[in-house]
Amino acid sequence: MKIYVDAVNQFLENLEMLLPDSGVPVTRPEEAAPLARQVPQPLRSAMRYSLLLPGKRIRPALLLAAYHLLAEDWQKALPYACALEMIHTYSLIHDDLPAMDDDAYRRGKPTNHKVFGEGMAILAGDGLLNMAFETMLEADITRERPAEAVAAMGEIARRAGVRGMVAGQTLDVTLEGTAPKQEYVEYIHEHKTADLLTAPLTAGLMLAGANQQQLEAGRQYGFNLGLAFQITDDLLDLEGDAALLGKNTGMDAQRGKMTWPAVFGVDKARKDAESCVNKALAALDCFGDKADLLRKLVSGITDRKF
Amino acid sequence: MKIYVDAVNQFLENLEMLLPDSGVPVTRPEEAAPLARQVPQPLRSAMRYSLLLPGKRIRPALLLAAYHLLAEDWQKALPYACALEMIHTYSLIHDDLPAMDDDAYRRGKPTNHKVFGEGMAILAGDGLLNMAFETMLEADITRERPAEAVAAMGEIARRAGVRGMVAGQTLDVTLEGTAPKQEYVEYIHEHKTADLLTAPLTAGLMLAGANQQQLEAGRQYGFNLGLAFQITDDLLDLEGDAALLGKNTGMDAQRGKMTWPAVFGVDKARKDAESCVNKALAALDCFGDKADLLRKLVSGITDRKF
Repeated sequence: MKIYVDAVNQFLENLEMLLPDSGVPVTRPEEAAPLARQVPQPLRSAMRYSLLLPGKRIRPALLLAAYHLLAEDWQKALPYACALEMIHTYSLIHDDLPAMDDDAYRRGKPTNHKVFGEGMAILAGDGLLNMAFETMLEADITRERPAEAVAAMGEIARRAGVRGMVAGQTLDVTLEGTAPKQEYVEYIHEHKTADLLTAPLTAGLMLAGANQQQLEAGRQYGFNLGLAFQITDDLLDLEGDAALLGKNTGMDAQRGKMTWPAVFGVDKARKDAESCVNKALAALDCFGDKADLLRKLVSGITDRKF
Repeated sequence: MKIYVDAVNQFLENLEMLLPDSGVPVTRPEEAAPLARQVPQPLRSAMRYSLLLPGKRIRPALLLAAYHLLAEDWQKALPYACALEMIHTYSLIHDDLPAMDDDAYRRGKPTNHKVFGEGMAILAGDGLLNMAFETMLEADITRERPAEAVAAMGEIARRAGVRGMVAGQTLDVTLEGTAPKQEYVEYIHEHKTADLLTAPLTAGLMLAGANQQQLEAGRQYGFNLGLAFQITDDLLDLEGDAALLGKNTGMDAQRGKMTWPAVFGVDKARKDAESCVNKALAALDCFGDKADLLRKLVSGITDRKF
């Protein structure tokens, strides 16, 4: 996956809208030579700060890998890949706010609102969500294949929105402190986490012109990878290494979060994660050898330490 | 404009994603008959609350009127019109938060976070911004005319985002309490307000397949209408009737906001608003009699009392 991750990091670092400038806080529109330079400070720094923190870049890498299953010109899909990272990053910034999870550290660094203040963190999140759509709408591939692009953007929007990630987030916040319950933890994990790990597969495949069977295989892989990823996350919060994770552990229990081990116990949680990995692997059969990268990725997901 | 406003209100009230349900707090995905019903409570109520408060619906009505200049089937553009209202509403919800303007009333009712709590208000705003793009991407017109749709969505995204409304919002928050300055108030009013009143014109015209001259005329009209609208808003906060406005007056001065009268004085502010109205009227010449509705709208904008 390194080739994808490197390409994603390069794309994000060179986003014209977020390039660091000479420090002028505001540029008047009529004086600004390139329109892209109009993003004012400190908004630009706040967005860059969270977007460029070292991350696994798993969502964008998955989208590129999925697209690459069916088409060679995977670089064309970079704006869509990076749009997913923007959506993921906005959700973390808002999730960390005092009114939500009230977290002080993320990926080993102070959270956005700790550095830039709450108001700016809210705006940086709003800006990144909006920028995800701007980035996709302005991409070459969108102009060249508008029908596929509209389908892929629709898929990303649905899974990121109030029937997807935002829905999961709502339940996660609303049900804090209530008794662990199977139907709730399933709903939260599916929407809060798996939806944004399924979207890279389905949207990447749609962009490359996949057929229904391929889309369904991608959906199965993404959903099971997402569930395995979140169960592992729950387990790491319970028994992981805070230094490696870059954040405090034991927070889920302290907050009364609905987690997989809280509902099913640690042993069943481990088994369920493994079973998801196997289902994800099985879903890849129709793609043959081309899917080896995706096989490797999901195989290691339950072993991760951070 | 009443025919447009009524159509907008009907569209918003019947949004499948936000229909009130029987009160079940969560619907499990596999049990949910129509996918659209998956939006969980209290998120759905929080979004409906702000979206359905009585409002002027000026942005969606403008988009429909602009589209109607060039095409008869204006109902086709309703999803785009209502997407603008969703973006406008999300920006108000986040703007009212304690970390931003800390407002308790909006349109005569308690603000979103006063009713649903800060966390839910943040999620409702995020959900509405995302839903704006979902609504456009799922619209019939987007499938039928993907190239025009992509152009219109790109225009809306740019003017709503970090080079548009969010940029204006950033300066509005950042510069609170600093000395009034012409270049700042121009930047804030252009981006915080005029961008989201220009987008209905340009996006509506793009959707209807306008040529460059028509787009430029729409841009001129929208920008000048937007500036006249915001200057009038500034004047109303200074000398308007709180009961009619449904919110407290004198807040701009109290907060040290960058307003037009604070920079230029009341007399020049009134003159500038009138001059914007005249420029907006002049821009409509190329549309002939068809633009009479838009003429009437901008002529009354400086007389409004709320």
